[in-house]
Amino acid sequence: MSKKVTKIGVLTSGGDAPGMNAAIRAVVRTGIYNGLEVYGIMRGYNGMIEDDIFHMDNKSVANIIQRGGTILKTARSKEFMEAAGRQKAYENLRKRGIDGLVVIGGDGSFRGAQRFSNEFDIPCIGLPGTIDKDIAGTDYTIGFDTAVNTAVEAIDKIRDTADAHDRLFVVEVMGRDAGYIALHSGLATGAESVLIPETRTDVEDLISGLTEKEKRKKLVNLVVVAEGDEMGGGSEIGKILKNRLPNMDIRISILGHIQRGGAPSCQDRIIASRMGYHAVESLLSGRHNVMVGIVDDKMHYIPLDTAVKEKQAFTSDWLKIIKILAS
Amino acid sequence: MSKKVTKIGVLTSGGDAPGMNAAIRAVVRTGIYNGLEVYGIMRGYNGMIEDDIFHMDNKSVANIIQRGGTILKTARSKEFMEAAGRQKAYENLRKRGIDGLVVIGGDGSFRGAQRFSNEFDIPCIGLPGTIDKDIAGTDYTIGFDTAVNTAVEAIDKIRDTADAHDRLFVVEVMGRDAGYIALHSGLATGAESVLIPETRTDVEDLISGLTEKEKRKKLVNLVVVAEGDEMGGGSEIGKILKNRLPNMDIRISILGHIQRGGAPSCQDRIIASRMGYHAVESLLSGRHNVMVGIVDDKMHYIPLDTAVKEKQAFTSDWLKIIKILAS
Amino acid sequence: MSKKVTKIGVLTSGGDAPGMNAAIRAVVRTGIYNGLEVYGIMRGYNGMIEDDIFHMDNKSVANIIQRGGTILKTARSKEFMEAAGRQKAYENLRKRGIDGLVVIGGDGSFRGAQRFSNEFDIPCIGLPGTIDKDIAGTDYTIGFDTAVNTAVEAIDKIRDTADAHDRLFVVEVMGRDAGYIALHSGLATGAESVLIPETRTDVEDLISGLTEKEKRKKLVNLVVVAEGDEMGGGSEIGKILKNRLPNMDIRISILGHIQRGGAPSCQDRIIASRMGYHAVESLLSGRHNVMVGIVDDKMHYIPLDTAVKEKQAFTSDWLKIIKILAS
Amino acid sequence: MSKKVTKIGVLTSGGDAPGMNAAIRAVVRTGIYNGLEVYGIMRGYNGMIEDDIFHMDNKSVANIIQRGGTILKTARSKEFMEAAGRQKAYENLRKRGIDGLVVIGGDGSFRGAQRFSNEFDIPCIGLPGTIDKDIAGTDYTIGFDTAVNTAVEAIDKIRDTADAHDRLFVVEVMGRDAGYIALHSGLATGAESVLIPETRTDVEDLISGLTEKEKRKKLVNLVVVAEGDEMGGGSEIGKILKNRLPNMDIRISILGHIQRGGAPSCQDRIIASRMGYHAVESLLSGRHNVMVGIVDDKMHYIPLDTAVKEKQAFTSDWLKIIKILAS
Repeated sequence: MSKKVTKIGVLTSGGDAPGMNAAIRAVVRTGIYNGLEVYGIMRGYNGMIEDDIFHMDNKSVANIIQRGGTILKTARSKEFMEAAGRQKAYENLRKRGIDGLVVIGGDGSFRGAQRFSNEFDIPCIGLPGTIDKDIAGTDYTIGFDTAVNTAVEAIDKIRDTADAHDRLFVVEVMGRDAGYIALHSGLATGAESVLIPETRTDVEDLISGLTEKEKRKKLVNLVVVAEGDEMGGGSEIGKILKNRLPNMDIRISILGHIQRGGAPSCQDRIIASRMGYHAVESLLSGRHNVMVGIVDDKMHYIPLDTAVKEKQAFTSDWLKIIKILAS
Repeated sequence: MSKKVTKIGVLTSGGDAPGMNAAIRAVVRTGIYNGLEVYGIMRGYNGMIEDDIFHMDNKSVANIIQRGGTILKTARSKEFMEAAGRQKAYENLRKRGIDGLVVIGGDGSFRGAQRFSNEFDIPCIGLPGTIDKDIAGTDYTIGFDTAVNTAVEAIDKIRDTADAHDRLFVVEVMGRDAGYIALHSGLATGAESVLIPETRTDVEDLISGLTEKEKRKKLVNLVVVAEGDEMGGGSEIGKILKNRLPNMDIRISILGHIQRGGAPSCQDRIIASRMGYHAVESLLSGRHNVMVGIVDDKMHYIPLDTAVKEKQAFTSDWLKIIKILAS
Repeated sequence: MSKKVTKIGVLTSGGDAPGMNAAIRAVVRTGIYNGLEVYGIMRGYNGMIEDDIFHMDNKSVANIIQRGGTILKTARSKEFMEAAGRQKAYENLRKRGIDGLVVIGGDGSFRGAQRFSNEFDIPCIGLPGTIDKDIAGTDYTIGFDTAVNTAVEAIDKIRDTADAHDRLFVVEVMGRDAGYIALHSGLATGAESVLIPETRTDVEDLISGLTEKEKRKKLVNLVVVAEGDEMGGGSEIGKILKNRLPNMDIRISILGHIQRGGAPSCQDRIIASRMGYHAVESLLSGRHNVMVGIVDDKMHYIPLDTAVKEKQAFTSDWLKIIKILAS
Repeated sequence: MSKKVTKIGVLTSGGDAPGMNAAIRAVVRTGIYNGLEVYGIMRGYNGMIEDDIFHMDNKSVANIIQRGGTILKTARSKEFMEAAGRQKAYENLRKRGIDGLVVIGGDGSFRGAQRFSNEFDIPCIGLPGTIDKDIAGTDYTIGFDTAVNTAVEAIDKIRDTADAHDRLFVVEVMGRDAGYIALHSGLATGAESVLIPETRTDVEDLISGLTEKEKRKKLVNLVVVAEGDEMGGGSEIGKILKNRLPNMDIRISILGHIQRGGAPSCQDRIIASRMGYHAVESLLSGRHNVMVGIVDDKMHYIPLDTAVKEKQAFTSDWLKIIKILAS
């Protein structure tokens, strides 16, 4: 039987995502409400190793639910991948009596947590925080909804100028391994084509589609590319199209890091709050070393070590719908 | 066996909702792609009765996916509730050969569609378009996600001034019969309390909670009220609180119609596009007189006459989470 | 000759306005850069009286330039209007050696500062911070540009639903004594009429204009009313119009406190930064007891006691332009 | 004495800018109000040459004041630079009796208009429409305020992730010849340094400043670069900094074309409306071949051929203020 948790640490790790602050707030306040002491750990696992840990109360998380970024900062930690680093980290927890951990981050962060928990018997709970939405065991990840809305608003602006000049824009959105941001933002902005890592890009098909639309004098032409598409990102695709379609006025836009920031959307704040609440409930109820997800709008728990990156099998009809609706 | 549909009409009916234009676009382009002729009907059922109907092509819906409102305008129609009105409407469809209808609106509009279909054997498909999200048979309704995000952004601004002056704000959001907007926007903005029609408002509990927070000098105090709360809307609740808490600086804000407008969110554009696409697919495949919904991220069809207003059984832990996280 | 200033206090007073944080940041960092010690005073003059004063360094104002509200909070202070209150305030400054003051607020706050300076020989500098823009001696006040943009974005959303339903909306914006917000937001959103305190509202003219537009089936009809119009705010005007135009579908929207919050616009951050910088420069150079304004894009200084509320003589052609452009 | 104008054409030319639609609306409606016939000309001077000209009424410009882009589309026209092209353009105007022209664009477009007017005695009025703000004879150009606010909102998002990861971001904003967007957005977002074409970039000074801030562990580090800086744009500056500061985590973001689109700000709508109104007034009153500007908030007219690109002598204290406030 697992011993009772009394003091917990919370940290954000890996790439930042809007809504992480809402998750931190939920963990801290639910912890305190349940009589736990809560500690903030700075810069992911680095703060554990470097002993950058501080006591948090209800006020520590006041007025942050609406803020982008993370008040605990975040980082990837090389040292934590080595046994010596994890040992140091453990000692810094032990000297404060911290006996539970909530890790907000991606699959890499979860693997680290699992290993740490195996070695030192500190139960860990993972919350999926990544704008890329490519984690198994949950329908939502914290930050995705904000990131796609940021992408959509940016592409809406690009539409205005594309339309005014009758230009074709190739827009690159984030997504090194996953095409979710591209797929959602492309469908939502009426792109002709969406190029993603999950499917093979058929350049001839793309070109013949654009040529046909050119002939019909369609108003706005957008191609949305995930940065990790197997043919290359926006710059590569743009180069190919310019080469093959020399009579078109083609421009390239790389949306970049704006997709990581900004006030979180309503949905990201809500799932972060719910997940944070249930992370503490899990620690208290002895459901340890799990990732807290939401599936079909119900809380869902999977062992931390199975929370790997996943290419969700999005219904293949999305690409078909995109094509038909852009006609 | 149902006869083949060849010409369809599309209309928006009842209260408007952001994303209706994305749905219209999807219906029009999917229809044309499948060889149908598509007609736009103005101002809901009124346009059918008054013969305000026009032919649409792919360009008719260019550059509207990102627009709030509805290019077909919307209205409630008294005349359509009477047999004579529906008869006139039918004749206007018949003279053009329109033999299928897509109705984007709420439960009242669906009942009208069902009755019309029963009388004249014109198959109808309903798409749930309402910011209130209170329709059975679907997890999403077109417009809800945009409306809650608008409410959240407005309340974020109110937080700024509430914090600067140490004031308590009572904010009224839309929702005559349903508390979804209040519940989501309240959880997302860290409100102390959310008052909704679905639960009995306990004023004494509300007042003791606010008094306790006053003592702890909590920074921001927000109460979010659905307009249809059984104790009254923002003005009534505000009056009660001012009366009972004379030492607090209490202000009231009624968010009002801003919640109905604005560019639709990514999610509303996506569900509207998917629903519009599948509305035409349903007409073509002979699945008639259904509402197209999405349940657990899969398309879901229910008979039009069962698509009534529904108090979705939201997990009661939401109100508990709101209370704990606002501590 | 004035003695040299070495330690300064900064406070925000009266109604809050977006951009106040940018002004605080500029005062603090310009002060420190010039070798001064800088103290933050909480809740306007109340903090001086209640000794709620704290030392500030460069980090105290990190990451606030983009925040609405004011980290120093704000209030109106009754006690400071009495000699005993000002005496207490002075003693709290003196015990820290604070020998200069920067007050960010409106004309009422400036009169208090002038009186205080007369009594205790502490030089004061005023920065005009009010969303109402009604202060003599400056073309800009901190917060106005953000407030009108918030009003414009809200009215844009209302336009969407007004257009969808062919409704007339009466929208009330802030402005108890001044019509600037109404005039700017009304011109920018294509309102038919703008009702402001500075001009007599001609109801017959308003009604005949709306009637004529009704006949022409103009798409969107908006009337923007300043809350301080001499005929009453949005509710009163709405009532009159509903009474006189019973066939129109008329709705009322009171924008309210959302106009006070939100991230400041680029312009508000810039004028706040420039004014804050020059406030400290003024204290250092012995130009005391002035309000720092900007006139024709140049810094402009007027004695604090002349910085009264002013109905700026806005060119009367604005109302004419609004009328012609809404045709 | 100039003959009376009776039919006018309006066009947008050169790079597009938010607010152009508000200007078109003002020209059309003021023209019609004064009894003129108004024609829209598509794609700048190209539409004149290709006879793509259409009659406009009040409804042609309904519901566009809030839209980015330009409903008349825009382009640069090579053919119009040659006598044969202008001759064709003239004939297309003459056959409709168009005897006056309003050109919304930049200095290049104005030179074309002047030449055309010299050759064919068609009076032309220029309205300064460019996000770059680098035109002599006016304090405002249509589009600048929207573009800087877009840049500021994007950089605010980048700040969130920069802060979360302790990264230095080099952000490139638009401005091929002018640093206004960089200067305004840099001051408004608290950048350490702003690199602009108007001043020589001192790399050593930049590096020593960043090194010093690194030591003080300043939270957010931003360098804003105008694309036309004489040392190169964001990519070049980023490369140099990465090379010289190998221990810093440095990222580059090119904001790109999002700066050209989006709903215009309140200010851009207002100046566009005022300028459009006065363009028609100028044509009617015989004040021909001028650019309509606003200087010190008053309408200001300069001969079209003097409306050249201008490096406005912005007060050199801005760069100093930026440096001090970023400490």
